Amino acid sequence: MAELSEFELIRRFFTHPTRHTQLGVGDDAAVVRVRRGMELAVSTDMLLSGRHFFRDADPRGLGHKALAVNLSDMAAMGATPRWATLSLALPKAEAPWLRAFADGFMQLARKHGVDLIGGDTTRGPLAICVQIMGEISVGQALRRAGARVGDDIWVSGHLGDAALALAALTKRIMLKPPELETAMRRLHAPAPRVALGEALRKIANSAIDVSDGLLADLGHICERSRVAAVLEFERLPASAVMRRYLERRVARAALLAGGDDYELCFSASPARHRAILAIARRIGLTLTRIGTVRRAVRGAPLVTVLALDGTPMNVKYGGFEHFR
Amino acid sequence: MAELSEFELIRRFFTHPTRHTQLGVGDDAAVVRVRRGMELAVSTDMLLSGRHFFRDADPRGLGHKALAVNLSDMAAMGATPRWATLSLALPKAEAPWLRAFADGFMQLARKHGVDLIGGDTTRGPLAICVQIMGEISVGQALRRAGARVGDDIWVSGHLGDAALALAALTKRIMLKPPELETAMRRLHAPAPRVALGEALRKIANSAIDVSDGLLADLGHICERSRVAAVLEFERLPASAVMRRYLERRVARAALLAGGDDYELCFSASPARHRAILAIARRIGLTLTRIGTVRRAVRGAPLVTVLALDGTPMNVKYGGFEHFR
Repeated sequence: MAELSEFELIRRFFTHPTRHTQLGVGDDAAVVRVRRGMELAVSTDMLLSGRHFFRDADPRGLGHKALAVNLSDMAAMGATPRWATLSLALPKAEAPWLRAFADGFMQLARKHGVDLIGGDTTRGPLAICVQIMGEISVGQALRRAGARVGDDIWVSGHLGDAALALAALTKRIMLKPPELETAMRRLHAPAPRVALGEALRKIANSAIDVSDGLLADLGHICERSRVAAVLEFERLPASAVMRRYLERRVARAALLAGGDDYELCFSASPARHRAILAIARRIGLTLTRIGTVRRAVRGAPLVTVLALDGTPMNVKYGGFEHFR
Repeated sequence: MAELSEFELIRRFFTHPTRHTQLGVGDDAAVVRVRRGMELAVSTDMLLSGRHFFRDADPRGLGHKALAVNLSDMAAMGATPRWATLSLALPKAEAPWLRAFADGFMQLARKHGVDLIGGDTTRGPLAICVQIMGEISVGQALRRAGARVGDDIWVSGHLGDAALALAALTKRIMLKPPELETAMRRLHAPAPRVALGEALRKIANSAIDVSDGLLADLGHICERSRVAAVLEFERLPASAVMRRYLERRVARAALLAGGDDYELCFSASPARHRAILAIARRIGLTLTRIGTVRRAVRGAPLVTVLALDGTPMNVKYGGFEHFR
């Protein structure tokens, strides 16, 4: 397979028309204009072969996921994603792989109105570094630090399916083929909850995306907000597949601590209950109230999960930790 | 050596006070505010072990260079660098290495008033991905596409020392120890020409930073501007070390096509000649007029280099090409 030069592959696969960019790919830097009254939310994520995905991963899925995890960070801030840069280290510059990767990336980018405005390509072990920028009205960003005692705790969609798929792929649980297929979609093609994040501005007091697992990510909200959280296990939104396996410890761990779901977990005043259910109907996404924000107690766990009988469950699962 | 957790290493080495940032490291995204009347210049560069630097490279130097090459892109746009994100893949999370790397990065960041606002760390083969954002008054960005027939072509500082050091390290040329030391500084600690870029707003018609080599980078200006360039070899600014070796082909190649100098090459109307020399005096940086922008001729090379006798030199050196 003929290899492409760096300039050629950028021209062929990573130069696309932009919709709201003053100067795009092809100069020393891109130039964009943030609209008046808007702040810029900025986030970056790096995905490595063998660490965040399997070495033989489908390139189209990789392109989608590399952008999706970054869009999810914009969603967690309530920001509207606008621009992205993409840095790519590749063992080889082969057209079919690059075409599929770029298609997966750009299809999701176009869906969310994101302009790809720059990047870098080099030869090396496969590594993908995406940086995303979004706009949000001044002061309206949803932060981790805003949770208040008495807030309801909510989560979107269903939890743990991505981790359940991973558990099946690594032979820690057996799923029936159709079940695996359903779960795999959550693992490989997460749908960032951008519309939800935008709708939660001025409604949620705090928000985070569930990338490290519910317990860990809700724990981040508690740390930053200096509060505690009490969850009711029975309320956690489990998919039909997940419900079938909840007797299994690995499934409960996936539900409580599985990463890669990219749902949003947020807190809001009980007075917002009906407004939040109205948002769920409008955007067609399940939103479930799973617990309550409490006063933090020295020495007590930040996040407590209550079983059906009201007693605290013994949950020790941490979140996904790159250096553990 | 005890390994650090991801959260711990971010807290210890990559969380620094910010000066002009609404929300820094520690949430799903950072939040910044672009000042009224300003546009945002955005650029990213990825550095890989074994590709852009030696595997045993000094971590402090790496931290400096990873930011320097990005600052150089801001300089080439005439933008004022303001914010950066840093993604880091590390084989091991060891405190001494991380401290040195972060010191090198942050020392240069503080010097240029750049806030480190976010990033990502993960385990993997050493890879460094920096994204930088700078401000520039609306419409004032220095582009590659602005060169006009009749423009003078200028370059800052001296060319080729970094490539000369690399040639010595790879045994393609022998330098005396003090010569090597001088050249090595250019390779390992490039000084991004940010002040020059800022001063050239409204003065230069086009600009680029010399990262791939003078011929390649000036070629980019010519392509984008649909013009040609004629250079006079004798005018190219060579350091004292470089001048001693100019008889050697490898030295001439370094001068004409060596990357990694991170000087600025720009074009401006001859009417700006005195203004440009005044900038050189004010910021204390040599600026040399090296040639002229000409009309592009179909089939003729974009960049011609004239020898002392006025005849075109036979220069075939390309720039640095990651996939060749």
